[in-house]
Amino acid sequence: MNYSWIKNQPDDLLIVRDDLYPFLGGGNKGRKMLSVLKEVESRNCNAIVTTGGIQSNHCRVVALACAQHGWKCHLILHGNKEAFYNQKGNALIMRMCGAAIQFVEPQDIGLAMDLAMENLSQDGYSPYYLYGGGHNKAGVEAYVEAVKEFSAELGLNKQPDHIFLASGTGSTQAGILLGLEAIGWNQTKVHGISVARNQERGIGAVLEATHFINPEFDASKILFYDDYLFGGYGLHPAELNDFTMTVARDSGIILDTTYTGKAYYGMLDLIKRKKLSGNVLFWHTGGLLNVMC
Amino acid sequence: MNYSWIKNQPDDLLIVRDDLYPFLGGGNKGRKMLSVLKEVESRNCNAIVTTGGIQSNHCRVVALACAQHGWKCHLILHGNKEAFYNQKGNALIMRMCGAAIQFVEPQDIGLAMDLAMENLSQDGYSPYYLYGGGHNKAGVEAYVEAVKEFSAELGLNKQPDHIFLASGTGSTQAGILLGLEAIGWNQTKVHGISVARNQERGIGAVLEATHFINPEFDASKILFYDDYLFGGYGLHPAELNDFTMTVARDSGIILDTTYTGKAYYGMLDLIKRKKLSGNVLFWHTGGLLNVMC
Repeated sequence: MNYSWIKNQPDDLLIVRDDLYPFLGGGNKGRKMLSVLKEVESRNCNAIVTTGGIQSNHCRVVALACAQHGWKCHLILHGNKEAFYNQKGNALIMRMCGAAIQFVEPQDIGLAMDLAMENLSQDGYSPYYLYGGGHNKAGVEAYVEAVKEFSAELGLNKQPDHIFLASGTGSTQAGILLGLEAIGWNQTKVHGISVARNQERGIGAVLEATHFINPEFDASKILFYDDYLFGGYGLHPAELNDFTMTVARDSGIILDTTYTGKAYYGMLDLIKRKKLSGNVLFWHTGGLLNVMC
Repeated sequence: MNYSWIKNQPDDLLIVRDDLYPFLGGGNKGRKMLSVLKEVESRNCNAIVTTGGIQSNHCRVVALACAQHGWKCHLILHGNKEAFYNQKGNALIMRMCGAAIQFVEPQDIGLAMDLAMENLSQDGYSPYYLYGGGHNKAGVEAYVEAVKEFSAELGLNKQPDHIFLASGTGSTQAGILLGLEAIGWNQTKVHGISVARNQERGIGAVLEATHFINPEFDASKILFYDDYLFGGYGLHPAELNDFTMTVARDSGIILDTTYTGKAYYGMLDLIKRKKLSGNVLFWHTGGLLNVMC
């Protein structure tokens, strides 16, 4: 694992650099994918059906993994079709990897995924159904393992008091919570900063993801803030752009304005408003290619 | 180190994935930078002056490293100024990191670097002079160490017969040659595919770089091909674009059209034309952000 320490925050800040995770383009979706891949292989599948937006980091790693393994990749995308074919970033990698692309309206995703599974089966493939964002047990397990790896590398006496991260589909936050439980770091608070959902739906999503592994997981442990949406998923007012520029200049940490920029902003604000102290860790979940589109 | 094995080439092909090197954006310039950084720190410098084109991977890693360390960064750039301020890729990272940017004509780079060093000294900084591309002893040493790491990980009996790589400023090829010499892999041939220079100048540049460490290095060991320039540095005809798309689709390996795309194309052609056989290794030197600009 890679780390950076940032000085001159209220206290020193430790950053887990999953933006450097060694899957092309980096990020938490790459980390999840290596775990998902093992399951795809163990089931002897040779195709993946999944879904996401036109700049989905998840769809990028699925497209890359399928091309590497010689598997068929079927992506059900939603959003601006013309932009998908013109933008770079994750969209370009999906196109380069030759994934089959199908655009549908958001309400039709479930049906389209079912049909794609059926069609691939009829064509003789053994397809794997993968929820958007890698939101399944294997994806959550990847972050349980990441916390174990982290604690082993840093030492079990280096328990952070607070972990902050961008929280979208909820499985990264769920994995971190379960990982902390597994190693007995029960005092660490995990603060998920929403990039899309309101608090109620967000907590529900994280809770559902924890239940893939521990059906008894207690919802009251889930901290999820919807105060830093900056207008909604994918929206980024000038203030947020300026903020990410300032962080880059002052620390060499590159944040995107869809995910990590909002989370980092929320972290600094919460530390200030709630007067949080102790060891603070920012789990950088990637997004470099979101900066490049 | 990260590796990929590609099936269905004439023989199986091993790829060293320095495109996944854990420095933001990846690539050989990141690997060199960590070595250069140690020297900057050991000299107690707090500023770097260097040079490159508007999409220089080298300038990107220098800008990031300076921001991370709180050092002043002065970049002498050449090329299209307007494009620099509009493009993403490496240019965007340089801008985000707040590097001081100065555009000059190529023939004025040396003078501009000297003046920038003087000005920083007068302003109380202790600046470090870094040749473009990280073309210095520390940069070469990074690849000597990389070869040692590679051989330790793969086993000393896994000597490749042929290593192919994109060769620009020459220090990566020089480091690999010296690393092979250091571990006694004297039968391995290192094929540098030029991305810019003609054969004579290219061999001279690689030789000069080997002399940073071994002044007796024998020029006859340097294999350097200028047959795959596709019109010149930065130029990429449709044929090359199509080629990189095909490789991505068939193997999930993303090549850029400035560096690795030309090298990979050259490798396949040389294997075929020269009927090369045995263990073949492609050293993927990165360039993801060149795909994104």
